[in-house]
Amino acid sequence: MALLDSLEWRYATKKMNGEVVPQDKLDYILEAARLAPSSSGLQPYKVFVISNKEILEQIRPVAWNQSVITECSHLLVFAAWDGYSLEKIETVFNEMMEVRGLPLNTMDAYKSTLWGMYEPLGQEWHATHAAKQAYIAFGLAIAAAAEVGVDATPIEGFTPPEVDKILGLAEQGLKSVVLLPLGYRDAANDWNVNLKKYRKAKEELVVEIK
Amino acid sequence: MALLDSLEWRYATKKMNGEVVPQDKLDYILEAARLAPSSSGLQPYKVFVISNKEILEQIRPVAWNQSVITECSHLLVFAAWDGYSLEKIETVFNEMMEVRGLPLNTMDAYKSTLWGMYEPLGQEWHATHAAKQAYIAFGLAIAAAAEVGVDATPIEGFTPPEVDKILGLAEQGLKSVVLLPLGYRDAANDWNVNLKKYRKAKEELVVEIK
Repeated sequence: MALLDSLEWRYATKKMNGEVVPQDKLDYILEAARLAPSSSGLQPYKVFVISNKEILEQIRPVAWNQSVITECSHLLVFAAWDGYSLEKIETVFNEMMEVRGLPLNTMDAYKSTLWGMYEPLGQEWHATHAAKQAYIAFGLAIAAAAEVGVDATPIEGFTPPEVDKILGLAEQGLKSVVLLPLGYRDAANDWNVNLKKYRKAKEELVVEIK
Repeated sequence: MALLDSLEWRYATKKMNGEVVPQDKLDYILEAARLAPSSSGLQPYKVFVISNKEILEQIRPVAWNQSVITECSHLLVFAAWDGYSLEKIETVFNEMMEVRGLPLNTMDAYKSTLWGMYEPLGQEWHATHAAKQAYIAFGLAIAAAAEVGVDATPIEGFTPPEVDKILGLAEQGLKSVVLLPLGYRDAANDWNVNLKKYRKAKEELVVEIK
């Protein structure tokens, strides 16, 4: 399915039927997230894939009690780094150089420049910047899910510190950013399924400067 | 092209050849951005599409002098709202209700709840939240460009207040967030074109909780 068709097909599913998403489709969605571009290629996030029912039951009450949290097949939790450090940057670039068959010091000047910019901006800025990168992967996971006919619900309505506690994210230097339950719509019981998709008109959203 | 193939094909193009992206491809890319989901459907951003050479010449020096800024066919500037207001929320929801053929007051309780949450968080939080939404649209525009064989360069390396000045964004209640030059690779002169794509291994990025 072409991307635009996927985006037209999808909607924020509010009621799922519990059917399990097969592994190959799940892998496809995660691969889209993995291939997402990120600033300087740092991919400063992890994606938690939760199918454990007890954990989902714990998350639901701190996610506005949204039923899709427990009705979904898998819940993706996008969790971003709580801050950058020279060490984290080094680790990524060392791996990148290895994959590219280049000397580990190839990007030393770039790494210094990057950390020179990031360090004074402080950890709160870092965490926000890392979260923004996670949103790119989140968007691509949404598109990938639609492409393989899997429903999804983009969710910001939850209490991140509570989800962080449930998953032990602080200990891992992570903060939960957005949730994406994956599964299949329960069309008969989803109030959102038949509502016409609303988007701003192109004229309202796009400004051309020729 | 399937999404994963598009994501494998693309790379951050560092040198473009000036060839013009035809209107139908440009429209396809912008339509992907338009169809992107956003928190509460507010789409709190605009996309500036700049092909004016003089404006591009002005932007290049405040974007680390990256040559793709002036070599591209069109530069997309994603600009997010500098803050939310009850009025802005009302405007979107009124349009949404019209499109859906529902009474304008259908979502009054939701709007109040939303503004009740947003208002105390302050304008800086608002601007960051709006920027995150723009990153979803940005990610989908990147994927759409690849799907139609158009090269693109995701760019955070610029001075947003300077781009804001050039485009008069503050007066429009907007802040520039990310740039996306669109065009065609100058493969012979692009140092990045043949470097192996690096992404973290799935085991490093994905954590399964079964």
